[in-house]
Amino acid sequence: MAEVDTARFLADLHELRKIGEFRTGVHRPTYTPQDMESRRWLMSRMAEVGLEPSIDGLGNVLGRHPGEGPRLLVGSHIETQNEAGWLDGALGVVAGLALARAGLPVDVVAFADEEGHFGSFLGSRSLIGALDEGEIDAARHVLTGQPLREALAEAGLAGLPRLRLDPARYKGFFELHIEQGTQLERAGLRSGVVSGIVGVSLWRITCIGKQDHTGGTTMAERKDATVAAMRVLSLIDERFPMVAAERTVWTCGRLAIEPNAPHIIPGRAEMIFQFRDIDEAVLDRMGECLKAIVQEVDRRDACSVSLEPVSRSAAAISAAPMRAALETAATKHANGQWQPMPSGAIHDAQHVARIMPAAMLFTPSIGGISHHWSEDTKEEDLALAIRILADAAESYLSA
Amino acid sequence: MAEVDTARFLADLHELRKIGEFRTGVHRPTYTPQDMESRRWLMSRMAEVGLEPSIDGLGNVLGRHPGEGPRLLVGSHIETQNEAGWLDGALGVVAGLALARAGLPVDVVAFADEEGHFGSFLGSRSLIGALDEGEIDAARHVLTGQPLREALAEAGLAGLPRLRLDPARYKGFFELHIEQGTQLERAGLRSGVVSGIVGVSLWRITCIGKQDHTGGTTMAERKDATVAAMRVLSLIDERFPMVAAERTVWTCGRLAIEPNAPHIIPGRAEMIFQFRDIDEAVLDRMGECLKAIVQEVDRRDACSVSLEPVSRSAAAISAAPMRAALETAATKHANGQWQPMPSGAIHDAQHVARIMPAAMLFTPSIGGISHHWSEDTKEEDLALAIRILADAAESYLSA
Repeated sequence: MAEVDTARFLADLHELRKIGEFRTGVHRPTYTPQDMESRRWLMSRMAEVGLEPSIDGLGNVLGRHPGEGPRLLVGSHIETQNEAGWLDGALGVVAGLALARAGLPVDVVAFADEEGHFGSFLGSRSLIGALDEGEIDAARHVLTGQPLREALAEAGLAGLPRLRLDPARYKGFFELHIEQGTQLERAGLRSGVVSGIVGVSLWRITCIGKQDHTGGTTMAERKDATVAAMRVLSLIDERFPMVAAERTVWTCGRLAIEPNAPHIIPGRAEMIFQFRDIDEAVLDRMGECLKAIVQEVDRRDACSVSLEPVSRSAAAISAAPMRAALETAATKHANGQWQPMPSGAIHDAQHVARIMPAAMLFTPSIGGISHHWSEDTKEEDLALAIRILADAAESYLSA
Repeated sequence: MAEVDTARFLADLHELRKIGEFRTGVHRPTYTPQDMESRRWLMSRMAEVGLEPSIDGLGNVLGRHPGEGPRLLVGSHIETQNEAGWLDGALGVVAGLALARAGLPVDVVAFADEEGHFGSFLGSRSLIGALDEGEIDAARHVLTGQPLREALAEAGLAGLPRLRLDPARYKGFFELHIEQGTQLERAGLRSGVVSGIVGVSLWRITCIGKQDHTGGTTMAERKDATVAAMRVLSLIDERFPMVAAERTVWTCGRLAIEPNAPHIIPGRAEMIFQFRDIDEAVLDRMGECLKAIVQEVDRRDACSVSLEPVSRSAAAISAAPMRAALETAATKHANGQWQPMPSGAIHDAQHVARIMPAAMLFTPSIGGISHHWSEDTKEEDLALAIRILADAAESYLSA
C-alpha cells in the first residue's frame, strides 16, 4: 500500500499559503505576480517529486509522470479569488504532489483561472480542447476589463503553446476539494464522496409592464411588472417541489425592477433564475416546468412575461468505479464519518469528465466559509482526506 | 357673472412657458435663476391685476387682494421638475391671476418647492405653520445635497420672513391642476371635480434571511430573502382586494435584494410598499391587513420579516360646498363631459385643507404624461377649466 506522507502534505500546503499571504488566507488572482510565483513554486515541487513540469500558454501547469501507464490525473487550481482562502483549489493540487511523492503513477495538474477572473473555466476547457482562440482573443478581466491577451503577456505566457490532455494517457481524474458548504459540518462528518457535480441551468425571466404614477393609475389599468414577477416566483415555489429530485436546488439570486422608485409602478422586472441537479433528466424536467409557468403568467397577467436561457452546464455523474474506490477507502479510514453527496458548486472535474472518468472527494469547510480569507479546515480532516484519496487512487489503479 | 378672459389666461400661460423653456416644456427647478425669474414675473402680473405681491423667506409668492372679504385663495406652484411640463403647477397659479383679473376677490399663491427638490411640500407646509426652522436647517437638495439655506441665500431669499396664511381671511382654497393620469382621457371626458386627495401610507418591509452559495445549500437549509418577499407580495395580492375600497391603489414600487448576484442566495430583501385612498378609515384597515400579512410570513417562513411605517399623509376630502359649486359649474359648461374623481397624487391643497376648506379641479393630461417636457393639455380644455373655476368661485363666494 502507498504510504502518503501527511506531515509533508500539510507542510507543502502551509508553504504555498505564504505566497500571496493575506491575513490567514491568500490573495493570488489569476496571472498576478503572486499567482505566477505559486505556479513556479508548483513546478519546482513537481520536479522534486519526480514529475516533468511544464506550463502552457494559459498558465496551466502539468507535471507528467515519467513512467509507464496506467496513470491517473490529480489536481485542481492554484489561483484564488481576491483575499480568499488558503485551501480552495490549492488543496487538490498539493494532494496530487503528495500522491506522486508516495510513488503513485500520477500526473499533477493546476488548471488556470478556475476562479473565473477572465472567463469560465478557461484552463480546464483549454486542456480538454473546448476553448478556441477567438474566445481567448475576446476575453477580458471581469472587473477591470483588461484583455486576457495583455494579462498573459504581462505574466510571460504569451507565445507558449497550449497543452491538451490525452485521455488515452489516463485511467481517470481525481479532484480533492473543500466542500464550500456546511452539509458535512452540520451532519458532524469528516469527509464526503461526491456522487456527481450538478449541472446548472440559468435563465433570464423578463416581465414588461407599463411604468405609471402610483397615485393616478387604478388597479384595473395597471401593468405592474413586480406583480408579474411575484406571480412567476409564487408558481415556482408551488410547483417546483413536485418536479424536483431529492437534492435539486433552485434560486432567484437576481431580481431588478425598474425604475425602482417608491411612487412609480414598475415597468420592468428582470430575474436571473437557476436550478441545479446532478441528473440531466431532472434539469430537463425543471426547464419544462419553468417554461409552462412563464407561459401561464404571460397569458393571464396584464404584463408580458418572457423566458430566455442564459447558460447550461452539463451535470457530471462521478465515474462509478472511482466513486466506489473512494467509498471503500472512506469506510476504511473514517467508517461512519463520511457520506455520499452531490457537489452543488462547479469544479474543473466537471469539464475533465467530458474526456475521461472523474470523481471528487470533499473535505469539510469550517462554518461553510469559502471565497473569504477566513476559510479553513481542520488539519486532521485534511490528513484524513489525503489518506482516503491515496488509498482510493491505488486501488482504482490496480482494479 | 364674472367674465373670465380665456384668451388672456392662455396668453399668460404661454408667456410663463418661455421662462426656462425646454423643447415644448420648461426647466425651472426650485431656486434656480429660471425659477426666480418666474416668481418675479408672477409678482409683476399680480400687481398688474391689482393684487399686492410679496415673496417670503422660502420663495412662496402671495398676491393679496386689497378689498374686503369674503375672499378666496387660488393657486398652486410655479417651479417644475427637471425638463418637465409647462402646465404642472403653473396652470393653477395663472388660473388665480385670471380670476383676479375677472374681478373676483381672490388672493393668488404660488407655493414654493411643491416638486420636492429640497423636501416635502416645504412651501405649503410653511404657509400653514407646519414647518419648523430645524427642518429648514437640515434640508438639502435631494440629488446634489446642497443645503437649502445655501440655495435660499443664492436665490436672494435669505433673511426674508416667512409668511403665514390666515384662515380667517379666506372662505376657501381652489386649486386647478392637470390630472397627471389617463382616467379623463380614457373616459373621453374634459374635466374632473376632485372628490378628495388620497392619503398615502408608506411602509418598509424588510426580509432578513441568510446569504449562502446557491449550489452548496439544500432547499431545507435555506433562508432565502427573495422567497420571503414573494410570499408577502403574494398574500397582499390575495387579500388586499378584500379590504380595499373602490378606488384604493397599492404598489410595491421599490424592491431591492442583496447581494443581487445570480449565484448567491439573497440574504436580505427590502420593499417600499404604499397604498392610497381618500378615506382614512380605509387606510387604517389596509394597514391592519398589511401588519397581519407580515406577521404571518414572519411566523411561517425561515426568514424574519418586519414592517415599519415610513410616512403617512392625511387624506383630504374636498369641502362639500366647494365641490358642489365645481360640479354645478362643470354641468353648466360641460354637461356629460366631466366626472367626479379622487386625486391619486398629492397636491398643495392637501396641506392647505388642514386650515381651511379646499377643493380641486382637474383638466386632462394628453396621454397621461407629466414630469416630462412633452406634457400637454388641449387649449379648449384649459379654457373650459378656467370658465368652470371662475363660475364655481363666484357662486361659492356668494353662497
